[in-house]
Amino acid sequence: MSEFNIAVLAGDGIGPEVMQEANKVLDAIETKFGVTFNRTAYPVGGYAIDTEGEALPPKTLQGCETADAILFGSIGGPKWDSLPLEQRPERAALLTLRSHFDLFSNLRPAKIYPGLEGLSPLRADIAASGVDVLVVRELTSGIYFGQPKGRDGEGEEEYAFDTMRYSKREIRRIAISAFEAAQKRRGKVTSVDKANVLVCSRLWREVTEEVAKDYPDVELEHIYIDNATMQVMKNPAQFDVMLCSNLFGDIISDECAMMTGSMGLLASASMNEDGFGLYEPAGGSAPDIAGQGIANPIAQILSAAMMLRFSLNQQEAADAIERAVVATLESGVLTGELLPADKRDQASTTAQVGDEVVRQI
Amino acid sequence: MSEFNIAVLAGDGIGPEVMQEANKVLDAIETKFGVTFNRTAYPVGGYAIDTEGEALPPKTLQGCETADAILFGSIGGPKWDSLPLEQRPERAALLTLRSHFDLFSNLRPAKIYPGLEGLSPLRADIAASGVDVLVVRELTSGIYFGQPKGRDGEGEEEYAFDTMRYSKREIRRIAISAFEAAQKRRGKVTSVDKANVLVCSRLWREVTEEVAKDYPDVELEHIYIDNATMQVMKNPAQFDVMLCSNLFGDIISDECAMMTGSMGLLASASMNEDGFGLYEPAGGSAPDIAGQGIANPIAQILSAAMMLRFSLNQQEAADAIERAVVATLESGVLTGELLPADKRDQASTTAQVGDEVVRQI
Ligand SMILES: CC(C)[C@H](C(=O)O)[C@@H](O)C(=O)O
Ligand SMILES: CC(C)[C@H](C(=O)O)[C@@H](O)C(=O)O
Repeated sequence: MSEFNIAVLAGDGIGPEVMQEANKVLDAIETKFGVTFNRTAYPVGGYAIDTEGEALPPKTLQGCETADAILFGSIGGPKWDSLPLEQRPERAALLTLRSHFDLFSNLRPAKIYPGLEGLSPLRADIAASGVDVLVVRELTSGIYFGQPKGRDGEGEEEYAFDTMRYSKREIRRIAISAFEAAQKRRGKVTSVDKANVLVCSRLWREVTEEVAKDYPDVELEHIYIDNATMQVMKNPAQFDVMLCSNLFGDIISDECAMMTGSMGLLASASMNEDGFGLYEPAGGSAPDIAGQGIANPIAQILSAAMMLRFSLNQQEAADAIERAVVATLESGVLTGELLPADKRDQASTTAQVGDEVVRQI
Repeated sequence: MSEFNIAVLAGDGIGPEVMQEANKVLDAIETKFGVTFNRTAYPVGGYAIDTEGEALPPKTLQGCETADAILFGSIGGPKWDSLPLEQRPERAALLTLRSHFDLFSNLRPAKIYPGLEGLSPLRADIAASGVDVLVVRELTSGIYFGQPKGRDGEGEEEYAFDTMRYSKREIRRIAISAFEAAQKRRGKVTSVDKANVLVCSRLWREVTEEVAKDYPDVELEHIYIDNATMQVMKNPAQFDVMLCSNLFGDIISDECAMMTGSMGLLASASMNEDGFGLYEPAGGSAPDIAGQGIANPIAQILSAAMMLRFSLNQQEAADAIERAVVATLESGVLTGELLPADKRDQASTTAQVGDEVVRQI
């Protein structure tokens, strides 16, 4: 019988309550598919700052090191916003985990689900045009981590600087992720850059073109980041896989997520070359609705499905979860934010949605 | 009688034809307000590459130096896309002009005109919520111009690098532009940054907070660039002035332009500390529709109005043009892209729209 170790980092805000539903779903998968998920919970984020004095305590990092995958909730909130940047949950925990485990390949799917077009902030005809984008974002290099970074000079001439930096190797491996993903989807990669201004983007284009030669069945096109933000709004159905550097992927993936109008449904995967990965919902910790039992657990549940697919190689189990989620959405067991304003009184709770997914499995 | 020298750089694609209409409008202003605009045309962009061998010939630069303002059309097109980056129209002409004249303050208004909500790619209720944003973009520093920039290393470890760099002085002067603009508008500045990752953004926040102290009547808020691209889509009416660095302003201003759905109506100003400026439409050279007499001249005409307002200090004349444009839009004399698909046969030509604006003056 297959057995896996999972580090569960629920974090702050709605993290713990949606994680509880993902755990229910994993329990159901254990029973149905005869696998075992040994789950160990570790403190992370603001909660870890409060209880252990730092956002990523050593025992959490060690727990992740011995696990087969990390199931991550969400972190941060107003309570920890005034800390020095380096100690804040986002940087101290999330960026450190990405970098420590070399989680360079970040997959962020954004899809407008049939029946939920009305939630999209886009015009009805655009929302109904069949939008299903996968943003493949480089996650461990670029201007996030490039050195040097700092401050120098004095008075009004004091200045700050950050370095955007990409090697051929770094570009090649994320481009390969994008082309591999496109082969399993609709066969198109749109690479987002600013090659009319940035030297990094020119290298990005060069290497992407090289990689494309190995995937003759995948079409490659290039788009400037400024134009990309326009096209995502005007005609998102033109995109299949969008390949982005760290910063541009941060921007484009959030724009794509918002475009669906249903952030509570979007999962993400962050993986390294060994298939180890961290899986987390696209939305944030939403401290404003935490603890009320109204948060949507679907994104967390779909993150667990991505974990099964990409790190634990449990394709059937992953399929089962994804099918159960679609069935749940169709059944109408929905949290409030997915319902039209005049039907919010029929909203299901976080737990009810989790139970329905389990039932559908 | 006031007399001004204007360098007219029509450029490529639709540039020359929309510039012709702006010139008609300036003729009408001369008559009505008793001013003289001495206009001299200079080659720029792809046209200058073809005729003079470079995108910004010395005589064009000299002509701009002796002028009171530059009225710019648009440049670039597929014909010149395969040139080495440094010689291409956008970089060789536009970025050089910005840098040479220190045109650090870039104003890009984006507004959904009453009656034209249907053009917006946003959901009807969002498009009708009263969207009127001014993006104030820093235009001569940041990662566009920061040094060092280049390539190094070998084999797969060969890497490219760009430097994002901002001094307090550079941030302060663009922040002041934003606060001054907000005072004349709805009194709110939203500063866009990535302060959870970039050292430049932290300095940006610090200096922006300092500047805010001198404008107690203006509200300042900060937003991350990833969240900003989401909010522009979800609730654009929340924004008045958006203050951005060069790269983030490039992205946000294009997203805001697209959100209006009427790129052919959007003008922009790029100014230095002496009030000298370059004025250009937000849209590109649109080579696909060039020469057919169907391009919308309004953005070019409104660019001329901004020139009168900001560089030539002719407020009344600027008001007159802007009023005439609103009247023209209301009169229904519109180019095809502003009309619903089934009414395109009633489209007016570029020249007819220009004539109508003149008539309304
Ligand atoms: C919290 C922040 C540092 C992070 C990022 O910019 O990568 C977040 O926006 C994300 O996209 O995961
Ligand atoms: C052409 C390009 C270099 C330019 C820029 O990025 O500034 C353009 O996109 C703009 O916004 O004016």
